[in-house]
Amino acid sequence: MSGHVSLVGAGPGDPDLLTVRAARALAAADLVLYDALVSTEVLTLAPRAQRFCVGKRARRPSFRQETIHAVMIRAARRGKRVVRLKGGDPFVFGRGGEEALALRAAGVPFDVVPGISSAVAAPALAGIPVTHRGLASAFAVVSGHDEAAWRPVLDAVPPGVATLVVLMGLGARAAIADRLLGRGWPAATPAAVLWAAGSAGLQRWRGRLEDLAAAAPSVATDAPATIVIGSVAALADAIAPSAAREPGAIDGGLRARAR
Amino acid sequence: MSGHVSLVGAGPGDPDLLTVRAARALAAADLVLYDALVSTEVLTLAPRAQRFCVGKRARRPSFRQETIHAVMIRAARRGKRVVRLKGGDPFVFGRGGEEALALRAAGVPFDVVPGISSAVAAPALAGIPVTHRGLASAFAVVSGHDEAAWRPVLDAVPPGVATLVVLMGLGARAAIADRLLGRGWPAATPAAVLWAAGSAGLQRWRGRLEDLAAAAPSVATDAPATIVIGSVAALADAIAPSAAREPGAIDGGLRARAR
Repeated sequence: MSGHVSLVGAGPGDPDLLTVRAARALAAADLVLYDALVSTEVLTLAPRAQRFCVGKRARRPSFRQETIHAVMIRAARRGKRVVRLKGGDPFVFGRGGEEALALRAAGVPFDVVPGISSAVAAPALAGIPVTHRGLASAFAVVSGHDEAAWRPVLDAVPPGVATLVVLMGLGARAAIADRLLGRGWPAATPAAVLWAAGSAGLQRWRGRLEDLAAAAPSVATDAPATIVIGSVAALADAIAPSAAREPGAIDGGLRARAR
Repeated sequence: MSGHVSLVGAGPGDPDLLTVRAARALAAADLVLYDALVSTEVLTLAPRAQRFCVGKRARRPSFRQETIHAVMIRAARRGKRVVRLKGGDPFVFGRGGEEALALRAAGVPFDVVPGISSAVAAPALAGIPVTHRGLASAFAVVSGHDEAAWRPVLDAVPPGVATLVVLMGLGARAAIADRLLGRGWPAATPAAVLWAAGSAGLQRWRGRLEDLAAAAPSVATDAPATIVIGSVAALADAIAPSAAREPGAIDGGLRARAR
């Protein structure tokens, strides 16, 4: 039997937000190599697989990218069904392209199973549409990890022309706000920060761009944060109003609240 | 019993690319109001529901947005479980925000079920990661429907700083290419057009920005097209090479080919 690798997006955290195809790949997997952002609940969908975390975790170094490639390739060549499981979508800041190239070069059969990216879903689950008639008809997605990467994009987009979504950007929120204010974005531009958006532990901060540097969750969390900047962020107050009445309050998410 | 509305993203077409939550909402639905882009296969997931197409179809006018709101609200008030089903994600050019606001104003309980947006998945399923280390660490998404909306974004983004993704942009491909070339984007910038990416009928055109105006599927289709512009488009040739060897050939997608 020939092995196979699936590069699978796990979505924003809730196992219900995996695709049907992703759930099926996990159920059939012999080996799951997962990133630190993947939730425990999602891993229970792969009961028969060996499971290894290959992502960064506190006080432990992450695996080198080449090591991940080698493990995937070796397991597939031994006939294993391997799932390489990544938070969100494998091709949105997930290094999935590098892994696909490595598998192709090694002649290992593989497929890509797209996942729900937090870039769109984290705002949506907190009541913020990234596009909205009359407010935003485009959006740009950057990673906050690397200033050399986000700076030219944020410098380029004129105020109000597109919704800005910053993934992994909490540490850079002050620098990002400074940069946009310096480029003429109004201080009152609506902004939001979402933590743990794909789970019942969703927390939301809503405010103005000038206050973004001070954005914080009301309950400490090491969940990744998604930042949204632009007029659409204010829609959260109308579409999912409870968090707006209690700024910083723990917020069970649009779904739980609406039910 | 109190009714309820779910604003559900159907993803790019293949029923396997719905989320588990979306599939469950469809299975339980009494009424499904779907857009024209939703595939027949997806609708079979709602066997017990009344199903109405409320989107634009050839020679038939689409429903007015206010009519859709009124139908959803009336059905929910009669105790129905309503699914408002949209291609891709409900908050990416889907007018889902307007529908959420209407439901909130009417006091009708609702939730939002994010879907896989073609903005990321159409490229991915054709072997193109929208971000890739060393090539692109940001991406911008615009709709090709409205030049007044895409022009300021494409004018703003300097060549090479971000991957550009244009949804519903086939009719505007010549104007878009002209605009970018006029703004200094190199003629040789890789570009791709993907049709019916979420299905076995995926077709892919790969070429240079200067040739984008002539991009066409090899088999006529009225499936929506996704355009990708930027260095990452060239990765398709390495990650999913078959279509690159036969430009314009019918292309069963990365998944089918890799198996």
